[in-house]
Amino acid sequence: MAKWVYNFGGGVNDGNVALRSLLGSKGANLAEMASIGLPVPPGFTLTTEVCAAYYNNDRNYPAELKCQVDEALARIEKAVARKFGDKDKPLLVSVRSGARVSMPGMMDTVLNLGLTDETVLGLAAASGDERFAWDTYRRFIQMYGAVVLGVEHHRFEEIIEQTKVDADVTEDTALSTRHWREVVGAYKKMVVEELGKPFPQDPQNQLWGAIGAVFGSWMNPRANVYRRLHEIPADWGTAVNVQAMVFGNMGDDCATGVCFTRDPSTGENEFYGEYLLNAQGEDVVAGIRTPRPLSKAYAKHDEISMEEALPEAYQELRKVREALEKHYQDMQDIEFTVQQNKLYMLQTRTGKRSAVAALRIAVEMANAGLLDHDTAVMRVNPAALDRLLHPTLDPKAERALFATGLPASPGAASGAVVFSADEAEARAQKGEAVILVRVETTPEDIHGMHAARGILTTRGGMTSHAAVVARGMGRPCVAGAGGIGVDYITQTLSAGGACLHVGEIVTIDGSTGEVYVGAVRMIEPHLSGDFGTIMKWADEARRLQIRTNAETTLDAETARKYGAEGIGLCRTEHMFFDAARIGAVRQMIMSRDVVGRRSALARLLPFQREDFIALFRIMEGLPVTIRLLDPPLHEFLPHGEAELAQVAGTLGMDEAAMRARFAELAETNPMLGHRGCRLGISFPEIYEMQARAIFEAAVEVSKIARAPVPEIMIPLVSTRKELDITRAQVESVAQAVFEETGKTIDYKVGTMIELPRAALLAGDIAVAAAFFSFGTNDLTQTVFGLSRDDAGKFLPVYLEKGILSKDPFVSLDVEGVGSLIRIAAERGRAKKPGLKLGICGEHGGDPASIAFCESVGLDYVSCSPYRVPVARLAAAQAAIKAKTPHFRDN
Amino acid sequence: MAKWVYNFGGGVNDGNVALRSLLGSKGANLAEMASIGLPVPPGFTLTTEVCAAYYNNDRNYPAELKCQVDEALARIEKAVARKFGDKDKPLLVSVRSGARVSMPGMMDTVLNLGLTDETVLGLAAASGDERFAWDTYRRFIQMYGAVVLGVEHHRFEEIIEQTKVDADVTEDTALSTRHWREVVGAYKKMVVEELGKPFPQDPQNQLWGAIGAVFGSWMNPRANVYRRLHEIPADWGTAVNVQAMVFGNMGDDCATGVCFTRDPSTGENEFYGEYLLNAQGEDVVAGIRTPRPLSKAYAKHDEISMEEALPEAYQELRKVREALEKHYQDMQDIEFTVQQNKLYMLQTRTGKRSAVAALRIAVEMANAGLLDHDTAVMRVNPAALDRLLHPTLDPKAERALFATGLPASPGAASGAVVFSADEAEARAQKGEAVILVRVETTPEDIHGMHAARGILTTRGGMTSHAAVVARGMGRPCVAGAGGIGVDYITQTLSAGGACLHVGEIVTIDGSTGEVYVGAVRMIEPHLSGDFGTIMKWADEARRLQIRTNAETTLDAETARKYGAEGIGLCRTEHMFFDAARIGAVRQMIMSRDVVGRRSALARLLPFQREDFIALFRIMEGLPVTIRLLDPPLHEFLPHGEAELAQVAGTLGMDEAAMRARFAELAETNPMLGHRGCRLGISFPEIYEMQARAIFEAAVEVSKIARAPVPEIMIPLVSTRKELDITRAQVESVAQAVFEETGKTIDYKVGTMIELPRAALLAGDIAVAAAFFSFGTNDLTQTVFGLSRDDAGKFLPVYLEKGILSKDPFVSLDVEGVGSLIRIAAERGRAKKPGLKLGICGEHGGDPASIAFCESVGLDYVSCSPYRVPVARLAAAQAAIKAKTPHFRDN
Repeated sequence: MAKWVYNFGGGVNDGNVALRSLLGSKGANLAEMASIGLPVPPGFTLTTEVCAAYYNNDRNYPAELKCQVDEALARIEKAVARKFGDKDKPLLVSVRSGARVSMPGMMDTVLNLGLTDETVLGLAAASGDERFAWDTYRRFIQMYGAVVLGVEHHRFEEIIEQTKVDADVTEDTALSTRHWREVVGAYKKMVVEELGKPFPQDPQNQLWGAIGAVFGSWMNPRANVYRRLHEIPADWGTAVNVQAMVFGNMGDDCATGVCFTRDPSTGENEFYGEYLLNAQGEDVVAGIRTPRPLSKAYAKHDEISMEEALPEAYQELRKVREALEKHYQDMQDIEFTVQQNKLYMLQTRTGKRSAVAALRIAVEMANAGLLDHDTAVMRVNPAALDRLLHPTLDPKAERALFATGLPASPGAASGAVVFSADEAEARAQKGEAVILVRVETTPEDIHGMHAARGILTTRGGMTSHAAVVARGMGRPCVAGAGGIGVDYITQTLSAGGACLHVGEIVTIDGSTGEVYVGAVRMIEPHLSGDFGTIMKWADEARRLQIRTNAETTLDAETARKYGAEGIGLCRTEHMFFDAARIGAVRQMIMSRDVVGRRSALARLLPFQREDFIALFRIMEGLPVTIRLLDPPLHEFLPHGEAELAQVAGTLGMDEAAMRARFAELAETNPMLGHRGCRLGISFPEIYEMQARAIFEAAVEVSKIARAPVPEIMIPLVSTRKELDITRAQVESVAQAVFEETGKTIDYKVGTMIELPRAALLAGDIAVAAAFFSFGTNDLTQTVFGLSRDDAGKFLPVYLEKGILSKDPFVSLDVEGVGSLIRIAAERGRAKKPGLKLGICGEHGGDPASIAFCESVGLDYVSCSPYRVPVARLAAAQAAIKAKTPHFRDN
Repeated sequence: MAKWVYNFGGGVNDGNVALRSLLGSKGANLAEMASIGLPVPPGFTLTTEVCAAYYNNDRNYPAELKCQVDEALARIEKAVARKFGDKDKPLLVSVRSGARVSMPGMMDTVLNLGLTDETVLGLAAASGDERFAWDTYRRFIQMYGAVVLGVEHHRFEEIIEQTKVDADVTEDTALSTRHWREVVGAYKKMVVEELGKPFPQDPQNQLWGAIGAVFGSWMNPRANVYRRLHEIPADWGTAVNVQAMVFGNMGDDCATGVCFTRDPSTGENEFYGEYLLNAQGEDVVAGIRTPRPLSKAYAKHDEISMEEALPEAYQELRKVREALEKHYQDMQDIEFTVQQNKLYMLQTRTGKRSAVAALRIAVEMANAGLLDHDTAVMRVNPAALDRLLHPTLDPKAERALFATGLPASPGAASGAVVFSADEAEARAQKGEAVILVRVETTPEDIHGMHAARGILTTRGGMTSHAAVVARGMGRPCVAGAGGIGVDYITQTLSAGGACLHVGEIVTIDGSTGEVYVGAVRMIEPHLSGDFGTIMKWADEARRLQIRTNAETTLDAETARKYGAEGIGLCRTEHMFFDAARIGAVRQMIMSRDVVGRRSALARLLPFQREDFIALFRIMEGLPVTIRLLDPPLHEFLPHGEAELAQVAGTLGMDEAAMRARFAELAETNPMLGHRGCRLGISFPEIYEMQARAIFEAAVEVSKIARAPVPEIMIPLVSTRKELDITRAQVESVAQAVFEETGKTIDYKVGTMIELPRAALLAGDIAVAAAFFSFGTNDLTQTVFGLSRDDAGKFLPVYLEKGILSKDPFVSLDVEGVGSLIRIAAERGRAKKPGLKLGICGEHGGDPASIAFCESVGLDYVSCSPYRVPVARLAAAQAAIKAKTPHFRDN
């Protein structure tokens, strides 16, 4: 016969924590606690299989269920020496839902079930406390009426309010037995009015009504929506827990409370929680009375802690805390009740905690021998870590929300609104803090973004120019705040009727996407020793190397400070926008012959060489992957008419010619246009100059420090021949430089795999490549046929409707893009075993994407400097999961 | 011991036609002819393996070669009773190259080898013709000097010219023995001056010199370039044929000639060729004397045919012709020599022929029992067939080239130059033939393209808008003629200094990409009964269904006439551009709410319904695949400022609002933007209207004719959920229409597979799709990361450098795009066996791409109406190749 009901407590524990899928989280943990000897009131769990069977059988229960419930109930009766529905010593029970994961929208809890007009008298007699009995009865009618029978809450509230008015009191506690009796009478009358039938007076009816309400709520609309959004299969089902009641509201030797085994904010090894004397659990939640701290350490001068009020039960609770932490090896979030000085445990689960606390708890538990290092590393959420590295808004600070956009680069910043990069720079030079506000940014805004404390754009997504550059620089950024209107002419930004002028102060929170009017108080990041310890343990566990995306010395230094093991992506074109260089770049573009281009490029060579010398010195012999020029040439030309005229003047060029050249270079789909190695093949002199700068720099550095190992990366390859041709160019420059200087250094030539064709032909391309670096930004664009500059118009709708579960530019699309990366890795390594594989898109800093990279066996990931610690931790967790099966389901 | 030398003729034939790879085409066919008893002078072939060994061994011959050549030479000597280098009866030989495929740039032929100052006397004595001997000697020195020793041709010509001047004659034939002797003396003197050493007088030296020259020429630069362009592996190598000379220049009973076994222009079963009395082969080629026709039938009144001049040899040749056609079962291109009335065969190979001839020869040979139907089908080149379906320029007509562009849509047309669609329409309505000239075309030009006889653009590639639409309409088109400047203001087009004004006549040849000034005489297409016969046989052989891409009734009717078996792609947006509809479309786009959009769409519904009724009636129950709206909305808005103002006026809309909406809809990469099902999901009312139009039309038609089976196709799907959502929309409209009308019809809902992600997730998507249609245009764009609108800037360079062997928008990239299609077909059919698969990109009409579709097992291809016959033939050939191994290498 199928087992539909599992007992716990009172000496019989059919389940344990491993049966979470069958018993739900709550039921499994109750059985587990009881089985290690903790004081759990006896009860039983109707399994999630009952729920499945119920829905599979047209909302009918399995035939054997009634009988099994009766048996289990009888067992409780025996254990607590009370009988369900008994008029002398009635057994009361709680009925609670308990799915595998907690889920809003479902029925939660009914307490005190079993009370009727008859049994309330028995309760009064058995407890010797008539007021308690009638208070409990009214609580039951209220709770059951609301959650099972669907009577609106306020109908009950109104009756109590009226009673208090009539009695001329303000507090519930001031109401007497008589009053509660009147309340019960009024409740029952109101229920009949509302439902047309009396409140159920048969405890069995009550019980099955509550059980039915729990199972029914599994399929209610709010639960369905939640499940769809969180990809929880409907056939998981929920369990139902029926448990003997214990009472925290039987007098001043009774209490109820919730607590964490350690401080969830700081992680301090202190018992942290709240209790209410003479109360039931829902009073804590309802906030009618103010709970008090558990321990003296947290009590203010006028507060009486549980340690003082109920010293015996408190000491018992401390022992339970030790036992739970030792048993679960993690900080627990628990619920308890004290009935006449006796402690009962009603729930335990893993406690949520702040990032700081997560670090501290993991380190201290490991140092105390509770955890091994790998487990400690698994306990820290990489996403939380990211917030640790940036200033955050003080949660207690007041604030006025102006608008909301995308959380594009974490951290918070305040400053004066400015609308141009030049003004940002000018004001910053005078020491002013500014927030650069643009509809969208372009590479010409880089100096202003650098000068600003934060960036706010009204268009573009998580991988828009603003977002990518801001993350690289570690600047907070809110992107694509579509609700804000920006008017460059009047120098204002407006949202929902409010309007801000240039120079007024705003605060942006790049971790939430929120924009506030005025300055909001902030908390500066502080990296504790625990951070370093976890990072050390993470480094011991991980297999993936972590590199950084960096072009500037500041980025490179930041990344090294955070533990980067080399540069995975140096975008050389970022070096072209500097004011000292852009003139030569534009001259090169305007030249119609190779002689003119060579002369302009000769002016750029010394700059590029110095750039590389600086990077090589910072990286001290670590690998530096340099991508040759990638964007289409028109990106370097001025865009507006006025600027065009000005630039033409500066360069001494004909304005009409410049306009003509601009029109000539314009593209319908620049993303799919004349860029990457297509430029290198059309204008070989560009890549030749860049290769020369790299090799001359490498030779130079090798004379005074550890020789770098430049890894030269050819972008946008779709055929092996493109790589053959550009590689040959690079090799011949290398040969020339080595001959001129009399020094030879090691180097590698590899390619980006950023087009589907390159991935599909990876076997062929591998023959000509020393390494592959997956450019997952462009790969995502081409695999989805989705321009990240244009996706803002429909991607939000897609996320909202659940067509995509997450933004594929933020977290790698494992099914699609990932499937192609897998094909490329397999085909590449089949032809060239040991081919070095890395990833250098924005995904390199995303924990889920890093887990995928581990599963494909890549050699490294590369991410922006401020993401390096996150990547180190995520890589460690991926490696630990790979080798330790029991972490995989977490 | 390795066999390096293969004998032929004289009773010993080591080879045959199957050994073409080893012996080269010429050598293999010589052995084959000799073995079926045709008169082939004896000789031998040095195999292609000698060539490979020569290059693998640092340009040294295999050790055994010399000995094997000596033996083979001795065999010839015996067979013809002459000795190489003998002063009395010298053996002369020809030395010819012979690769697997003929290849320009390589050394071709040296005749009369073996003549020296000594043997020339023997030749004179043995032939009894002194003049012949000295003429032959001077021919040898001239040929060997030029092709083996590298002396420039003109040096020899000058000497003959001087001799003729001195002798006061104008014709070579007027020179006497003495003169030829003097010429020989002068030649030898000149060679010493040029080379610093005398002309070789040892026949063995001469022979090895010639052999070395053939092998050496395999690797000369021109041959290397040709091989790279035609993807001929360098290790194939060439063979060398050494053969006893026969002489067509020994007197008036001697001749040399080339002929086809049937007329290569018309295919008529007539012996077609030319001969020269008393001449050697190179005289025909050199064009010094005018050759005469072989048969009386082709002779003009003053010409003496070979039939009359050498009746015996002619009758012999007719027998040979019969034997060759019977043996090879194909029309042959042969070379022969008659020496003293005796016929010798020097070469046979498959003859090149016109498209008309190919059809006629194949049909007549099959009807004569020489071929089976499959073989006849294999004999017609689908590319040639395409030209048959369109007017062509008369090859004999005079013409003045103006410029050259891409051959974007086949056929030729003449007409007055016009620069706007409106003017094209206006003039065409008055009966004028016009050529529409645009920098590039947009959907708004459709009416003008339709009115014009042909289209000329100066920008865009083979799949630009102009090219695609023109092919669809069957209009000739030259696209991307970058050498032409178009000035809309002055209404002129200019190229290379020449200038044409509006109204002046031009002729375009869309099959070659050429543009001519003035009208060039044309030949109208005439489809013979042979065409129908071959199409019938092709239909019997093919497995792939052939559908058409069509939106208009004209297209649909044309396609059915050419044998289309349904519509594979009906692009509904093309129906939106009509003047009567575009207003409503624009009103829909300008609406900011669903109510406004619905009202505009309601105006469009009757139009769309009528469109579909017309198509369904033409297709008479055949499947009609309808793609719901695909392009981004901004494509439907006016582009220029002036037009924008005008349209705003017409629609009674605010001009500023329209401008704002246009800016709002603008995209950075429209190809990767808000289009396809992304529109259908953002604005469900659009797809709902289209679905309603389809179902209402289908129900309507089903009442009066065979019910159509609409196949509704969702574009640009990248996730299964997109398909789930849009399919549910379509299904609910279908349900509604069926209920309203009380009639139900069959229909299918499927999807385009045009994004890499859709291909990768084909297994998942297949669950929700009744069919897949591979949209290879977009798939090519995304797989390569290559915008077809922008590729013009570098694709030509790529083709020129051999980075790509062909334009991937014209012929499917089998390695990349094809690999992805294969993955999609496999994954799709693994989940849903029997899933219907088709292709509807521009590649559907390309024979190589169709062969690929056959290999993947697709169910159908869809192409523009005028390509349907080509596709039927190509599909048949692919099927025949698949089942008949011996066709695969052809």
